[in-house]
Amino acid sequence: MTSREQALALDARDPLRPLREHFTLPPGVIYLDGNSLGALPKATPARIARAVEQEWGQGLIASWNNAGWIDLPRRLGDRLAPWVGAGAGEVLVGDSTSINLYKVLHAALQLQPAQRRVVVSERSNFPTDLYIAQSVVNAHGGELVLADAPEDIPALLDGRCAVLMLTHVNYRSGRMHDMAALTRAAHEAGALALWDLCHSAGAVPVDLRGADADFAIGCGYKYLNGGPGAPAFVWMHPRHAGRAHQPLTGWLGHAAPFAFTTDYRPADGIQQFQCGTPAVLAMTALEASLDVFDAAQALGGMAALRAKSLALTQSFITELDTRVPQARVASPREAALRGSQVSFSLPAEIDGYAVMQALIQRGVVGDFRAGEPGLLRFGFTPLYTQHVDVVDAINVLVDVLATQSWRAPEFQRRSAVT
Amino acid sequence: MTSREQALALDARDPLRPLREHFTLPPGVIYLDGNSLGALPKATPARIARAVEQEWGQGLIASWNNAGWIDLPRRLGDRLAPWVGAGAGEVLVGDSTSINLYKVLHAALQLQPAQRRVVVSERSNFPTDLYIAQSVVNAHGGELVLADAPEDIPALLDGRCAVLMLTHVNYRSGRMHDMAALTRAAHEAGALALWDLCHSAGAVPVDLRGADADFAIGCGYKYLNGGPGAPAFVWMHPRHAGRAHQPLTGWLGHAAPFAFTTDYRPADGIQQFQCGTPAVLAMTALEASLDVFDAAQALGGMAALRAKSLALTQSFITELDTRVPQARVASPREAALRGSQVSFSLPAEIDGYAVMQALIQRGVVGDFRAGEPGLLRFGFTPLYTQHVDVVDAINVLVDVLATQSWRAPEFQRRSAVT
Repeated sequence: MTSREQALALDARDPLRPLREHFTLPPGVIYLDGNSLGALPKATPARIARAVEQEWGQGLIASWNNAGWIDLPRRLGDRLAPWVGAGAGEVLVGDSTSINLYKVLHAALQLQPAQRRVVVSERSNFPTDLYIAQSVVNAHGGELVLADAPEDIPALLDGRCAVLMLTHVNYRSGRMHDMAALTRAAHEAGALALWDLCHSAGAVPVDLRGADADFAIGCGYKYLNGGPGAPAFVWMHPRHAGRAHQPLTGWLGHAAPFAFTTDYRPADGIQQFQCGTPAVLAMTALEASLDVFDAAQALGGMAALRAKSLALTQSFITELDTRVPQARVASPREAALRGSQVSFSLPAEIDGYAVMQALIQRGVVGDFRAGEPGLLRFGFTPLYTQHVDVVDAINVLVDVLATQSWRAPEFQRRSAVT
Repeated sequence: MTSREQALALDARDPLRPLREHFTLPPGVIYLDGNSLGALPKATPARIARAVEQEWGQGLIASWNNAGWIDLPRRLGDRLAPWVGAGAGEVLVGDSTSINLYKVLHAALQLQPAQRRVVVSERSNFPTDLYIAQSVVNAHGGELVLADAPEDIPALLDGRCAVLMLTHVNYRSGRMHDMAALTRAAHEAGALALWDLCHSAGAVPVDLRGADADFAIGCGYKYLNGGPGAPAFVWMHPRHAGRAHQPLTGWLGHAAPFAFTTDYRPADGIQQFQCGTPAVLAMTALEASLDVFDAAQALGGMAALRAKSLALTQSFITELDTRVPQARVASPREAALRGSQVSFSLPAEIDGYAVMQALIQRGVVGDFRAGEPGLLRFGFTPLYTQHVDVVDAINVLVDVLATQSWRAPEFQRRSAVT
């Protein structure tokens, strides 16, 4: 158990401490939901204002060239690449996670022989991944096979398996897969490995090339702090360039989009995964947030972020164990298996949803995910979360449970977005 | 031929004159490229700043409910609906034109019996439409059949035709189809009618319900002034609700996305055409620009916009005929066939691309589209283009051609985006 003074001392000697200053955080709020929507970098409003007022307002159409709008998908991809273990020219930013998954899953299935039409994933994967996969396997006359537990995955990698499609860090539990080992297992079985990095990019070490993965996608609005509904990203191992094709054949994936030819001819490499015109303003927000990662690189990079993230999540688990005996931790206690979040359930007689609403009203912002069991989720973004936030959040949680303030009627009402 | 004084007098009594005050336009620029990227509404920067600093920065994750982010796709769709002749709850804003076309074209083909697998379109359609259609017909074992001229279309509507897919206003010539007549012809042949409104929405009268069309898509960054890469929109006639399905089955097209169930179950109606998380900041820019259309509604609505648009384009054509004998007008002279742009070609000995660069350097901004023949394109946005702009633009064009200033080496260089 950590005292508030000890936590403050840890924060004082935190080498990443200057990074918090890069963010706008509302006063009185302990924001532990950066795994759902990252906080606003302080530089972002001015950067967006410049894009809106100067680039769009004054530069108008010429900004496609003069402000480099046309290169945004590749430029942001190159800046993101080192944080996911990808090379230059391999990552493209744009569209949504769901749409990018659709592209790469089609591409992966199309690379495989006709007898391989099964996509293996997990029942606990984020629903949009499963929904998109259902659509894609239907189109290919295939099947989606779901593992009930991580340890069941290897046995599903058989001669029918085309693609192992996993989310690296689970959105509910925060459990992290061994990307290298599972990619190897997939390859040994003749399958391709496709990774969803939504809860990984910017939060945990990812080494796509080191793991020899085949495809990856991920989102820009969680740990990357690109803003609500920020553009997503897509990566393909260069060994598939020229062989893998995807069906969203919009004009900017064409080899020569401004030739305006009638027939589609895919661009080389990752560029063919671009579809329509890039969402410049949304891209600009993400570009500003990547500046913070440059600052993080100078302060120790992902090794430092990971060390702090693990310290924060371990501290939160320890505090739960010590001070919240009702909580049943759903996230891995083993550091190697843990992403950058901690989830826990409460006994049936305590309404976890209402507890979360009571916490939010007290300024401790996490979220609640329904299911069996319902989970209270807390994300620990090493860029801006402090050790003292852990102690303060636990104090409020202990109080909410002790006083049963969560029983107030106002905390029972469900919102449109939960 | 109109004198500058006559043009100024026309502007002085233009009932839509107050609308120009809603836009930021750089000094010294005559912007005639709003058909490619609309100008910046003056209210947009503050609206985006509020979304970034207040809704995101202060409201954080709670803004999905409290700022109504989750409703943006339907809310903006409802505001756009009257401008395209759609009903409330029928239009959804999001993703790109290309992606929305992919959705509705799949949906349309899936509604048709197996013997109908041909998509009929035009060779002169915008390339992304043709590229996406090629992908979709390939997936359905179908065929894309292209008309070389508008008058060839009806003969292609036979018993194999599943979908007539047309862009209402051609991106090169500005020629406008008779939506009602062609939709009727498609229906009489047993085909469905799908309309791309990229160069129509906000610029010319569109009556999707009146024409009894089946599907429509369009873009937000041209005449709708939603900003570079603004979200696109999608419409489906409600008679297809519950029967039409599309393959981009992301979580927000699910009937109960926050139930986080494993199996996909499509939402009713147009909502199933949503895929991933909405691009909130980009949506916000489009929302601000729709306020200008509210102001336009109060000043006479589409009838007034169309009247002004036709007056501007007719004036430009008349000036070309009178003062630029080298120009061969490629846009229809008949008002009923003309969108809100005028394109023309120049004789082979005059480099149209270089002429456009010379015009742009003089502050007259249109664009050049390569092809046979190459076309100089000028868009006339009735919200902010003035009659005097026509006269001034022609004066500069006459001078550029007379002095052959376009021969300067600086005007020969091609940019990445042309």
